[in-house]
Amino acid sequence: MRFEVTVLGSGAAVPTLERGATSHYVNCNERHILIDCGEGTQLQMRKYKVRLQKISHICISHLHGDHFFGLVGYLSTLQLLGRNEGLTIYGPEGLEKLIRQQLEIGGAHLNFNVKFVTTNPKESELLFEDKLIEIRSIPLKHKVPTTGFLIKEKPKERNLIKEEFDKTGLSVAYIPKLRQGKDVEKEDGTIVRAEDVTLPPKRTRAYAFCSDTAYKEDIVPLIKGVDLLYHEATFTKDKIERAKATKHSTTEQAATIAKMAEVRKLIVGHLSARYKTVEKHEAETQAIFENTQVVNDGDNFIIY
Amino acid sequence: MRFEVTVLGSGAAVPTLERGATSHYVNCNERHILIDCGEGTQLQMRKYKVRLQKISHICISHLHGDHFFGLVGYLSTLQLLGRNEGLTIYGPEGLEKLIRQQLEIGGAHLNFNVKFVTTNPKESELLFEDKLIEIRSIPLKHKVPTTGFLIKEKPKERNLIKEEFDKTGLSVAYIPKLRQGKDVEKEDGTIVRAEDVTLPPKRTRAYAFCSDTAYKEDIVPLIKGVDLLYHEATFTKDKIERAKATKHSTTEQAATIAKMAEVRKLIVGHLSARYKTVEKHEAETQAIFENTQVVNDGDNFIIY
Repeated sequence: MRFEVTVLGSGAAVPTLERGATSHYVNCNERHILIDCGEGTQLQMRKYKVRLQKISHICISHLHGDHFFGLVGYLSTLQLLGRNEGLTIYGPEGLEKLIRQQLEIGGAHLNFNVKFVTTNPKESELLFEDKLIEIRSIPLKHKVPTTGFLIKEKPKERNLIKEEFDKTGLSVAYIPKLRQGKDVEKEDGTIVRAEDVTLPPKRTRAYAFCSDTAYKEDIVPLIKGVDLLYHEATFTKDKIERAKATKHSTTEQAATIAKMAEVRKLIVGHLSARYKTVEKHEAETQAIFENTQVVNDGDNFIIY
Repeated sequence: MRFEVTVLGSGAAVPTLERGATSHYVNCNERHILIDCGEGTQLQMRKYKVRLQKISHICISHLHGDHFFGLVGYLSTLQLLGRNEGLTIYGPEGLEKLIRQQLEIGGAHLNFNVKFVTTNPKESELLFEDKLIEIRSIPLKHKVPTTGFLIKEKPKERNLIKEEFDKTGLSVAYIPKLRQGKDVEKEDGTIVRAEDVTLPPKRTRAYAFCSDTAYKEDIVPLIKGVDLLYHEATFTKDKIERAKATKHSTTEQAATIAKMAEVRKLIVGHLSARYKTVEKHEAETQAIFENTQVVNDGDNFIIY
């Protein structure tokens, strides 16, 4: 099953031709999720070949324009393209009112159902789950109520070793139980141990998105061991005071969070437009957490 | 003095990578005006080298998203780039509230003054004038209150013929009067006729922007003889019923308005995304009004 992340916009508050406003596309086991939707996101989707209609969940981290000004335009386009399928939007209080007002004043009536779910910036909540994935919020610390998002596979079942199972003489009806790791007692009283006829399940993969935020250590348990962590790194380490004042993070802070959380890979973005090259961000993050990459628009990460 | 128009976005309701949402930039005698501001306009300005900070007037035709969803992002960017200079926005009732709400919820406080002027969709009004230009509204006919905009030079003064003036022996203090076309009586009672010592003034140039609108003949007197007319032509002539239903115009209708108004040149845009090429639009408009051009993003017109 596929798990991939595409960076649609890697810029900070001021979008440029090189770095679009924040937006990430996530395909987790064929659940298609858009995280943040800055101005121009619908065009970035076209540019990077993400089909506009396939998104079913939109997560908005906070109500700064570079993270949501593209949402109303994207919804309008979905309507004009004839969408019928419903859509769920997770975001801060106030988002629904703003979006509905803008649609109403232009006389746009959406022919598909949009459900708004208000996020809680104070504690982590389960926002969505089905049999394959879950989406949780990650409380962040910024100038306005903000959450990140954790997109995670559901724990998987153990994998059957067919030859070993066949030797037991059990009916196939017991397979689900064994795959769940439960032992089975046969009619003759002998026990078939799950671990003898199955292999451990594949790892559950996870992606965490943390933007925008000041340095916040208490997110570490929530993102522990994720395969891919996106953490903002608006500033280089010399700008730590500016980072504090604006409630953003530096390179060192992002990398420290990644290290403490023992993630597999860190990607950083939301670089202030003052930086014309990424070398300093790369060097400063990698000095603390080696497997770090500064992202560009269009970068695609496949999680295996 | 320069008079130029740059098409920043030539598309219709659904923006694409080829055709951005509607926006035109006008430089009329160094007054810098943005007409409409669909999503992504700030990036189109960067792409086509229009300096974001130099705009002093923004005209919004109506509250359909493809004409104004980029406004709040553009204002936010101006703020982040440190603007101090005021800005006037002309647009329909309701625009100010929407924009201010979106800025407020993100905690954005603009450090420059924005004055909103509500347009009247029922009759043409003088929205702005100074010594060199004027901006007037053009009532249009669409699904929501809509106006176009006429940007026109002020009538110019006559040009002095220096040698002829010198022969009169008059003081230079009389030059302004003569340039206004008024005759001057000398002390000896002889008359110096303005037309003997001055040449007629240069033509006053004008640009008219008419989008979105159904066919509306009564705009003809308002745009009579303009140098450049932009008129929407969303549909080809075979789609006249669709044009009526959606209150848009066809190629034939746009060209007929241009012909009746005896404009110098017609440019058409806002082509429905269903059209992959412009040949039909070109042929159908030019059959009625020869000097017609279907515009693309980035097209620039200099009015002499």
